[in-house]
Amino acid sequence: MLITKYEGNKTFTVSEEEITPPNAGEVQIKVAYCGICGTDVHIYHGMMDKRVAMPQTIGHEMSGEISALGEGVLGFEVGDKVVVRPLDNRAEKPSDKGISHICRDLKFIGIDSPGAMQQYWNIFDFTVHKLKSDTDLKLAALIEPLAVACHDVRLSGLKAGETAVVLGGGPIGMLVAFVAKSQGAQVIISEVNPVRIAMAKSWGFDVVSPVETDLKSYVESKTEEKLADVVFEVAGVQPALDIMTEIAGIRGRIVMVAIHGQPKNVNLFNFFWKELKLIGARVYEPEDYEKAIDLVTINELPFEELITDVQPLSNIQKAFEQNDLNPNGMKVLLDCQA
Amino acid sequence: MLITKYEGNKTFTVSEEEITPPNAGEVQIKVAYCGICGTDVHIYHGMMDKRVAMPQTIGHEMSGEISALGEGVLGFEVGDKVVVRPLDNRAEKPSDKGISHICRDLKFIGIDSPGAMQQYWNIFDFTVHKLKSDTDLKLAALIEPLAVACHDVRLSGLKAGETAVVLGGGPIGMLVAFVAKSQGAQVIISEVNPVRIAMAKSWGFDVVSPVETDLKSYVESKTEEKLADVVFEVAGVQPALDIMTEIAGIRGRIVMVAIHGQPKNVNLFNFFWKELKLIGARVYEPEDYEKAIDLVTINELPFEELITDVQPLSNIQKAFEQNDLNPNGMKVLLDCQA
Repeated sequence: MLITKYEGNKTFTVSEEEITPPNAGEVQIKVAYCGICGTDVHIYHGMMDKRVAMPQTIGHEMSGEISALGEGVLGFEVGDKVVVRPLDNRAEKPSDKGISHICRDLKFIGIDSPGAMQQYWNIFDFTVHKLKSDTDLKLAALIEPLAVACHDVRLSGLKAGETAVVLGGGPIGMLVAFVAKSQGAQVIISEVNPVRIAMAKSWGFDVVSPVETDLKSYVESKTEEKLADVVFEVAGVQPALDIMTEIAGIRGRIVMVAIHGQPKNVNLFNFFWKELKLIGARVYEPEDYEKAIDLVTINELPFEELITDVQPLSNIQKAFEQNDLNPNGMKVLLDCQA
Repeated sequence: MLITKYEGNKTFTVSEEEITPPNAGEVQIKVAYCGICGTDVHIYHGMMDKRVAMPQTIGHEMSGEISALGEGVLGFEVGDKVVVRPLDNRAEKPSDKGISHICRDLKFIGIDSPGAMQQYWNIFDFTVHKLKSDTDLKLAALIEPLAVACHDVRLSGLKAGETAVVLGGGPIGMLVAFVAKSQGAQVIISEVNPVRIAMAKSWGFDVVSPVETDLKSYVESKTEEKLADVVFEVAGVQPALDIMTEIAGIRGRIVMVAIHGQPKNVNLFNFFWKELKLIGARVYEPEDYEKAIDLVTINELPFEELITDVQPLSNIQKAFEQNDLNPNGMKVLLDCQA
């Protein structure tokens, strides 16, 4: 089988290896597709070399079919279409208070241990979610990032009829916008890239460029002065942090989706004055995966159009290089059986 | 009657005026005591001269007895002991979503309109809460700041058995600690002033100086590594902002009680990583006042000891001057009938 490995220094290698049988408690998955996540791009750029034990097979946005069952595995059959929730919480302790998905010693599969950018992948059965047999496995590779969006929206407490502003229209921002809209919210996307603006408009979103339009006035005009009930900060830049507390209305909730590696300036006065809430959101819980699976199963959202490129697994190096050169792209998938 | 007025330039005047009868919808209160709030000190220092229409009678932490009723006032009688919830929300609009206590055009009575540092005060009946006839009016002057603490604790969702860390042991911090403890929480106070540390210890609190002890290790040792369920940021300084996200455990809630006039550095990564919540909290709602009234009525907390000085109303200038010179003091009251 083909297996890829990140070797450091912006380099992936592709090699041929024996397929190994799954251990007890594991399933073997014939990987269909694996998406390239922003985190994978960070790894490729060497930003996470301290954490990633090289050479390492990365990748966690995957779909596939079960090809073998390890000893003691129940509830699955060979041929089942599946996705993996790539969280290894086996080191969970009582001090984690049962909050498994972000337990202190969580290992993220595909970063801290081998991931899905290979043809056959052996993985713990407790991470596996089953799909309907007619699920499109290409779209199913979007379930992991879609589960992130479902988690973000769930933690925001967004209700039908409320107004949500999504700051940043990249892949996660768009998925958050889709999930928010599917729950009956009025959604406004703030994005600067004209290609992404056009894309979001083509999907029926209300999109504003904050460099051309005064975002606060715009949100005010769209909400009878109430301003936003929920703001999703998915941009990860200081101007988004500056505007997020301005566009949130009284008791607005701001979900921190972006990863800010350094302490940043935040207008705490606005938190006090309007009784705002800042809600940190990380990865997902099983129910978010089930929600994402439902959304892909009913397939009423333009998931297909979010996939802007598909490359064979053997082209992994080129796929990452091209992805860097294309700021307009959304989701790039590796076809692991091509 | 005696009436005091802030004239700007760190100056209060005291003068004799006619007692005026209450207008329709108002009650006249014979003011018993009025506490000096941190906000009053800010006004005295000229920090709020843009907002305060000088000369202005300030003061909002009051207690008293009804001495006359305006036309149409129901539910009160002359002689009722009362406190005022100093929020004028008459300009509330639909865009405030019914969140009256922080509506956009809220006027704070005693800052934006005349307050209680006078002998007889005419005030809207909708701001008045009745006390039991045997209530100690000196302690009742603490109800307003105590209601702030009740609001902070209520918005935190603190439950019995949880651990709360209070950053800053000034008057509001101490009251937050009392309310948190009265709800069955384990409370740790972080404070640097030795006099305040001793005071808090005398009341049975677990108190740590963060300059002498590593606060994170301390909280860890007291919580079987869970860290804090709730952190109250009442200190208003950057070191408190730096430590608040460190000492909060997974899904910990941080209540922003302090007023940070300028944007400040915040570790947003910790919000993401541990799914923390930041909860802005401002003033109080009627139920917080009722809770504070209950606590003063049952009088099981050492409220008396929080009152470190009482000065006659005519000594207002001296009271503010002395307050500035005494960093160890907690709550100073003006005796408005002395």
